[in-house]
Amino acid sequence: MLRRSQLFVPGNNERMIRKAALELRPDSVIIDLEDAVPVDEKETARKLIRELLPQLDWDGKELCVRVNDPRTPFFYADIDTVYRIDPVKCIVIPKAEFDLGFVYKATGREIEPLIETAKGLLRIEDVVRSEGVTAVSYGIADFALSVGGSLKAYEPNQVIKTFVVSAARAYGIDPIDRVYFDIKNLEGFRMDCMEAKSLGFVGKQVIHPSQVLVANDVFSPSEEEVNWARRIVEAYEKAVRDGRGAINLDGQLVDYVHYKLAKRVLEFVRQSG
Amino acid sequence: MLRRSQLFVPGNNERMIRKAALELRPDSVIIDLEDAVPVDEKETARKLIRELLPQLDWDGKELCVRVNDPRTPFFYADIDTVYRIDPVKCIVIPKAEFDLGFVYKATGREIEPLIETAKGLLRIEDVVRSEGVTAVSYGIADFALSVGGSLKAYEPNQVIKTFVVSAARAYGIDPIDRVYFDIKNLEGFRMDCMEAKSLGFVGKQVIHPSQVLVANDVFSPSEEEVNWARRIVEAYEKAVRDGRGAINLDGQLVDYVHYKLAKRVLEFVRQSG
Amino acid sequence: MLRRSQLFVPGNNERMIRKAALELRPDSVIIDLEDAVPVDEKETARKLIRELLPQLDWDGKELCVRVNDPRTPFFYADIDTVYRIDPVKCIVIPKAEFDLGFVYKATGREIEPLIETAKGLLRIEDVVRSEGVTAVSYGIADFALSVGGSLKAYEPNQVIKTFVVSAARAYGIDPIDRVYFDIKNLEGFRMDCMEAKSLGFVGKQVIHPSQVLVANDVFSPSEEEVNWARRIVEAYEKAVRDGRGAINLDGQLVDYVHYKLAKRVLEFVRQSG
Amino acid sequence: MLRRSQLFVPGNNERMIRKAALELRPDSVIIDLEDAVPVDEKETARKLIRELLPQLDWDGKELCVRVNDPRTPFFYADIDTVYRIDPVKCIVIPKAEFDLGFVYKATGREIEPLIETAKGLLRIEDVVRSEGVTAVSYGIADFALSVGGSLKAYEPNQVIKTFVVSAARAYGIDPIDRVYFDIKNLEGFRMDCMEAKSLGFVGKQVIHPSQVLVANDVFSPSEEEVNWARRIVEAYEKAVRDGRGAINLDGQLVDYVHYKLAKRVLEFVRQSG
Amino acid sequence: MLRRSQLFVPGNNERMIRKAALELRPDSVIIDLEDAVPVDEKETARKLIRELLPQLDWDGKELCVRVNDPRTPFFYADIDTVYRIDPVKCIVIPKAEFDLGFVYKATGREIEPLIETAKGLLRIEDVVRSEGVTAVSYGIADFALSVGGSLKAYEPNQVIKTFVVSAARAYGIDPIDRVYFDIKNLEGFRMDCMEAKSLGFVGKQVIHPSQVLVANDVFSPSEEEVNWARRIVEAYEKAVRDGRGAINLDGQLVDYVHYKLAKRVLEFVRQSG
Amino acid sequence: MLRRSQLFVPGNNERMIRKAALELRPDSVIIDLEDAVPVDEKETARKLIRELLPQLDWDGKELCVRVNDPRTPFFYADIDTVYRIDPVKCIVIPKAEFDLGFVYKATGREIEPLIETAKGLLRIEDVVRSEGVTAVSYGIADFALSVGGSLKAYEPNQVIKTFVVSAARAYGIDPIDRVYFDIKNLEGFRMDCMEAKSLGFVGKQVIHPSQVLVANDVFSPSEEEVNWARRIVEAYEKAVRDGRGAINLDGQLVDYVHYKLAKRVLEFVRQSG
Ligand SMILES: CC(C)(COP(=O)(O)OP(=O)(O)OC[C@H]1O[C@@H](n2cnc3c(N)ncnc32)[C@H](O)[C@@H]1OP(=O)(O)O)[C@@H](O)C(=O)NCCC(=O)NCCS
Ligand SMILES: CC(C)(COP(=O)(O)OP(=O)(O)OC[C@H]1O[C@@H](n2cnc3c(N)ncnc32)[C@H](O)[C@@H]1OP(=O)(O)O)[C@@H](O)C(=O)NCCC(=O)NCCS
Ligand SMILES: CC(C)(COP(=O)(O)OP(=O)(O)OC[C@H]1O[C@@H](n2cnc3c(N)ncnc32)[C@H](O)[C@@H]1OP(=O)(O)O)[C@@H](O)C(=O)NCCC(=O)NCCS
Ligand SMILES: CC(C)(COP(=O)(O)OP(=O)(O)OC[C@H]1O[C@@H](n2cnc3c(N)ncnc32)[C@H](O)[C@@H]1OP(=O)(O)O)[C@@H](O)C(=O)NCCC(=O)NCCS
Ligand SMILES: CC(C)(COP(=O)(O)OP(=O)(O)OC[C@H]1O[C@@H](n2cnc3c(N)ncnc32)[C@H](O)[C@@H]1OP(=O)(O)O)[C@@H](O)C(=O)NCCC(=O)NCCS
Ligand SMILES: CC(C)(COP(=O)(O)OP(=O)(O)OC[C@H]1O[C@@H](n2cnc3c(N)ncnc32)[C@H](O)[C@@H]1OP(=O)(O)O)[C@@H](O)C(=O)NCCC(=O)NCCS
Ligand SMILES: [Mg+2]
Ligand SMILES: [Mg+2]
Ligand SMILES: [Mg+2]
Ligand SMILES: [Mg+2]
Ligand SMILES: [Mg+2]
Ligand SMILES: [Mg+2]
Repeated sequence: MLRRSQLFVPGNNERMIRKAALELRPDSVIIDLEDAVPVDEKETARKLIRELLPQLDWDGKELCVRVNDPRTPFFYADIDTVYRIDPVKCIVIPKAEFDLGFVYKATGREIEPLIETAKGLLRIEDVVRSEGVTAVSYGIADFALSVGGSLKAYEPNQVIKTFVVSAARAYGIDPIDRVYFDIKNLEGFRMDCMEAKSLGFVGKQVIHPSQVLVANDVFSPSEEEVNWARRIVEAYEKAVRDGRGAINLDGQLVDYVHYKLAKRVLEFVRQSG
Repeated sequence: MLRRSQLFVPGNNERMIRKAALELRPDSVIIDLEDAVPVDEKETARKLIRELLPQLDWDGKELCVRVNDPRTPFFYADIDTVYRIDPVKCIVIPKAEFDLGFVYKATGREIEPLIETAKGLLRIEDVVRSEGVTAVSYGIADFALSVGGSLKAYEPNQVIKTFVVSAARAYGIDPIDRVYFDIKNLEGFRMDCMEAKSLGFVGKQVIHPSQVLVANDVFSPSEEEVNWARRIVEAYEKAVRDGRGAINLDGQLVDYVHYKLAKRVLEFVRQSG
Repeated sequence: MLRRSQLFVPGNNERMIRKAALELRPDSVIIDLEDAVPVDEKETARKLIRELLPQLDWDGKELCVRVNDPRTPFFYADIDTVYRIDPVKCIVIPKAEFDLGFVYKATGREIEPLIETAKGLLRIEDVVRSEGVTAVSYGIADFALSVGGSLKAYEPNQVIKTFVVSAARAYGIDPIDRVYFDIKNLEGFRMDCMEAKSLGFVGKQVIHPSQVLVANDVFSPSEEEVNWARRIVEAYEKAVRDGRGAINLDGQLVDYVHYKLAKRVLEFVRQSG
Repeated sequence: MLRRSQLFVPGNNERMIRKAALELRPDSVIIDLEDAVPVDEKETARKLIRELLPQLDWDGKELCVRVNDPRTPFFYADIDTVYRIDPVKCIVIPKAEFDLGFVYKATGREIEPLIETAKGLLRIEDVVRSEGVTAVSYGIADFALSVGGSLKAYEPNQVIKTFVVSAARAYGIDPIDRVYFDIKNLEGFRMDCMEAKSLGFVGKQVIHPSQVLVANDVFSPSEEEVNWARRIVEAYEKAVRDGRGAINLDGQLVDYVHYKLAKRVLEFVRQSG
Repeated sequence: MLRRSQLFVPGNNERMIRKAALELRPDSVIIDLEDAVPVDEKETARKLIRELLPQLDWDGKELCVRVNDPRTPFFYADIDTVYRIDPVKCIVIPKAEFDLGFVYKATGREIEPLIETAKGLLRIEDVVRSEGVTAVSYGIADFALSVGGSLKAYEPNQVIKTFVVSAARAYGIDPIDRVYFDIKNLEGFRMDCMEAKSLGFVGKQVIHPSQVLVANDVFSPSEEEVNWARRIVEAYEKAVRDGRGAINLDGQLVDYVHYKLAKRVLEFVRQSG
Repeated sequence: MLRRSQLFVPGNNERMIRKAALELRPDSVIIDLEDAVPVDEKETARKLIRELLPQLDWDGKELCVRVNDPRTPFFYADIDTVYRIDPVKCIVIPKAEFDLGFVYKATGREIEPLIETAKGLLRIEDVVRSEGVTAVSYGIADFALSVGGSLKAYEPNQVIKTFVVSAARAYGIDPIDRVYFDIKNLEGFRMDCMEAKSLGFVGKQVIHPSQVLVANDVFSPSEEEVNWARRIVEAYEKAVRDGRGAINLDGQLVDYVHYKLAKRVLEFVRQSG
């Protein structure tokens, strides 16, 4: 599963939802029921997605829904809606601060938590190792609010990024970089993507069609990465046939984490044909 | 709040619900949406309680609803129903295994978790210290199932009881003893109550009107306990006026835990006064 | 994988090893390199098993090797031997007190830890949730030694049993009851098996051929258990086809833990034809 | 309680103590018994403050005493003195590394721990969630010493600041920025205050009268913040009347943390009214 | 250091203190400043022990002082007194629930915590692994009070005993059994000692001269134990000379824990000549 | 023990090993069996060091061996070799992520773990407080690989450095800075050493003879440091004679951590004296 770009779409905007499904090429689409939907429209949005999402052709895209914070009553009606929508593959949970495995058990859907509070940072390991979690992202505006600080002061913060990437990789899940709000500035966005990639993020949450292409481009693996991946996959699958879960390839330990990294690279190649 | 008896009533049984509210005298009533309600009747039960509960006069009884396990989809529709029912004071959550503070935040209702799985026993401290938890009980049949053992082998188990009481008291919440299934055997029930009281439980979950009176009787404080309580309350409130949170009464540390124990005793006297 | 009986065989006793493989019917055979092999014969035993084990027909039995305590140098030569022996499926690690996942990574073999020290009891959760662990047992003689107490005082101890079973079941692995040393007393042994089964243990470690048959008998599922298992498996597999990881069967939550319990029951039926 | 400025005053300097109480306007005064008082004068300082502090008019200022490290014998005589001094509201505990709730229980005074050692950083969550803790600050000189590094290398360190602010906010207590030693450089001090505010600190520890005014100014809320606070308080108090602990205000979760932030803002307005 | 008997002596009773030092033969004497000393006599008791204890000849006995609970103000004056009394070797801390290493650092005296509350049971590992702890005991009356239960119900409780012994042994410190209150019943006391020994306790807290002799007798090692100890010490010291911290003696791991057990046995032999 | 420079030497390079022992002056020599030795030469290297290391005169240098990752089978044969080589004082364990005390118990050798994976960063406290650990270092290339990021992005990362130094100092062990790969650039290397020293590292891992001298120079204590050390040692040893483990020297707490820092300084003076 590639997650180079995850496009947020307001859950009450039918036009954009159709566009995301039918015209755009993000790896994931995240239908938002939280901040992008005003309180008065939450119920309308739930009805809309319940009917609309199963009708559209998602064409290999990972379909996700961002529900409201479990500490609000909205969350419960959201889950009661989402688990009935067949094509939804993943539930994005904001302000994650604790073990979310129960949502996975109840819905059978993968979980992508968002770290965006002080306690979420302190508890990130509990969050990412929840059963069913396959990716994690974070939010800087909400984080700054939660500590009473300013967005500008926390944007360059290395502590949060280092912990999000480390916790994700320690548990074999995908770290996804946060939203870049300035949709006019594509050059700034590209640089943000490149920095994120160098830190180990596998993709970026995006909010506008124009950001999709840039993210897909930056986070696609290079030829060198592809060759590395081929060797890893070959060696590891041979090892597994020999009953081994970890091998030494040219003096480097190669285990399931590397295998998953490599498989994602090759899946990309296959998909983009 | 006294919790000498907590009467379970099936959530789809209007007659029993009315009886529990209007004719019986348990300290708490727990409307059940979980095991006592077949899958096909869950939605009927939700509708029934949404309409019926606000109409009845609960007359000082603590009204609780037991929802389904958070690892089933039923839970979400349950919470979406319960948080709208004004007189509900407390949500009983079965198979509790993790921090449940989010339910308290979302609903504003107190939480009473049930320890009834292997992991619940291992994680009991996380469960009872969740924000909003005010009582805890446990279930032996479900526990035995969760470990693949038999009810008979686990009924006398001291480990579970010791941990339920200790975890509850360590965090200043009420330990409530489990259901006694043999409704014909009131003498056995009374002895079960007395053993529970000697271990520190403050009351018992019950399933039949005849058990209510016995539980209320056994778990009511004796005169000696009442005198002790009067001294504690007096001394502690004086201490608080002097800006102290813990005092030494006749060489014994007296703090907020003791104060709460004592206040419950006196509240009983006042109510039954 | 059934584990009703796990027969210990001294690693330096070729005759018994052959007998265990070819004549006896334990579900698992545990070749011992630890307490049953004197220090002077450790190296001889390693050589013997390296050559002998691959030649024998294990006929569906789970072949395990108990290595020495990781806190002795013997452990390293043991592992260096065992990971090269193809038919070995599982490594039994005595005096387990910490995360043993590294042994699984290095060898590709499943791990069965033994809880038999004071610290092992306190750290049991770390031990059983190690990657690659599929069963856990315990030892009472070593435990008593580790706390400076007597075997007799600890044999009936419910704390250890409750924690071994609970930790195992909380993480979906098999709890196996400990060795019964009095090989002459088969009636006592049978009662010990029955008590163990009622607590949720799935089988017993045994030390003599005569104990194998009794254990296999007691720990085999009854007809009622078989019917229960059929329903669980059917319902759960249907649920999984519908994309759900947990279902409500007659008002009871059924999830992967129950499915694994049920599958083991049916596997038994299939094997025993 | 505003804590924009917390003025340290040596505990053996009567003139400065009087000045701090009667002439200066810090939000808190911290009488120091630790580093500012030489060993030979500890006892003199204890006697002085025992007599002097109750005589002065503190006029709404939060009166705190910094005691010595609990790992020195001085600490015990300090506490034995301080708990008898009525107007003392808060005890500042240096080199905090573990749960300090026992000091709160013993004295009935709030606790402000200082994070200033390597272990304190690793254990910060245990420290800030101690019962009775209402604010937390940190020290960079002592931290650098504790790791064998230099002050200059650790002054810009983002890890320490991020964890102090996050731990404080995760548990709803006040993060206070550290001392700025260069008392001549008021412009540098102002910039330090502004950076601290942007990171979420609510105030600063200060050591000289001239720093008080600057800190009070920078950490006072702006008009925009005041309006935000009015809306939060109004909405949250209405929610509480409706029995809810968390609400959605314009699509944002508002809970007790925000309410406390907002209340502090309004308290400021009222006081300076 | 043998700790077969630890005799409590009220801290305000000069006659008994002298008797304990000069006439009786307990391995440890614990001067009590807590429950045995009324509030009004605490200060008198402190003065008495400050003067008296250094004058007496303790003759190889371990001199301990039980201070008041750290959650009362008495504790601080107690420590301020005790750290100045040279012959005091150990501080007994009641109602222990958290890391007590700071008391060791401040006083240089060994620590013996008492587990006697619900939270103390849950946190026992934090308590016993505190720096400076060398023994641990527990109290059943206070424990029963802390959970609101009765003494009679908790006296036979195996959970508490198992955890006290296990936690102590896991960290290489001495588990000491609790007080037996019925001073008239020496036969019952002897049986209590024997049960305690079989569980691994090394001695007993006692309250009357008549109990001292019985405890010393029961907890003295037998000849067989002495022989075992001689072999362990010899083998381990040889191992240490060879640079090894753990050895295999007749197929059993022998490490520092066993060495300390063995040394205590031999020290007894040496002392008792 | 000084650890200003720790020189890596490939375990299969006899010439370099001889040179390191006989001609060069690093404080430690680390014979590498991991990355510097190709898979095909592992066994050759083990044989070489088994024979060669005992023959050479290490002349006060700390002799270490870096074994392979415990999650590879190489590790077991490595340990089986190393524990038999007398002059080896320390085992360096790469990709450390869990409690490594068992290796110390088995071998009697000190442990120096390397933090170089995402999980290693999250678990650093478990790693450094393992029994037998006396120093810790880290690797940035492996860390970047483990998170899927680039070396360049992680080289300046402050989070990793802050945690390595803090965890080391919190447990009283030596933090050693990582390898600087550009062996031609001695000026850059010197600056790297100076930054490391200012952060509290006591030395540096090096890979070439030319780096040894620079590291020894930068990490040697200055005269001022020497004077400070003399006072600490004198005061602390006097305190210990008085039965105290922590003292107040000029108002600063001085305990075992400072004593060890100071002793290292003086040991240097003595050696180079
Ligand atoms: C920011 C935003 C409001 C701007 O919308 P806009 O003003 O319509 O933007 P543009 O005019 O540039 O849009 C160009 C086209 O892309 C479409 N589009 C814009 N954002 C889109 C999105 N996130 N998904 C799908 N389609 C989108 C528009 O509908 C428009 O299509 P049309 O011309 O066919 O109508 C919009 O991008 C948006 O809602 N983003 C997602 C916000 C969100 O979900 N936030 C929650 C997480 S932070
Ligand atoms: C066990 C049970 C089915 C027996 O019911 P029953 O056969 O009707 O019992 P009885 O005939 O003795 O009941 C006598 C009266 O008490 C009423 N009653 C019985 N249990 C009651 C209950 N839990 N709450 C309220 N009223 C109850 C009956 O309705 C009946 O009243 P009625 O004569 O006015 O009709 C019933 O007690 C019950 O449902 N208990 C609760 C079960 C539950 O909630 N379990 C979940 C947690 S384990
Ligand atoms: C206890 C023990 C020594 C008794 O052995 P014994 O005196 O030979 O017992 P018996 O004479 O009753 O044995 C009968 C037959 O069973 C065989 N046998 C006994 N225990 C066996 C075992 N554990 N596995 C395989 N075969 C076994 C014997 O070899 C003998 O076979 P034979 O007649 O063909 O020679 C033996 O059972 C044993 O070694 N058990 C395992 C001990 C162990 O591994 N302990 C470590 C974990 S606690
Ligand atoms: C640094 C310090 C010694 C400088 O003192 P100084 O040389 O007297 O400073 P100034 O001459 O500028 O002081 C001007 C006036 O402010 C007063 N003053 C200075 N610092 C003061 C303080 N922290 N609190 C109250 N009054 C103070 C002085 O007494 C003087 O008043 P006066 O003219 O009426 O005598 C002093 O500010 C101080 O002691 N600060 C607190 C140090 C401390 O507590 N450290 C521990 C935590 S890091
Ligand atoms: C229970 C207790 C009050 C009984 O005291 P008592 O009535 O004097 O007992 P006896 O008359 O049997 O005492 C016989 C002698 O032993 C002495 N004695 C009794 N308990 C003693 C003790 N704990 N330490 C030293 N001497 C003691 C008495 O002083 C008396 O000596 P004397 O004849 O020279 O005066 C007493 O044993 C006691 O105080 N025990 C300790 C209680 C304590 O410390 N509790 C706190 C922890 S639970
Ligand atoms: C990088 C490296 C291959 C360069 O080696 P090189 O090309 O031989 O370097 P130079 O020619 O500059 O060496 C000069 C002398 O120092 C010796 N030398 C170089 N690195 C040495 C080392 N790490 N230890 C001991 N001697 C070393 C060389 O053998 C040579 O000696 P000689 O002239 O007597 O033959 C070598 O330094 C090396 O192997 N370093 C250690 C790598 C390692 O262990 N990595 C694992 C941890 S990251
Ligand atoms: Mg957000
Ligand atoms: Mg149940
Ligand atoms: Mg054993
Ligand atoms: Mg300081
Ligand atoms: Mg007590
Ligand atoms: Mg490396």
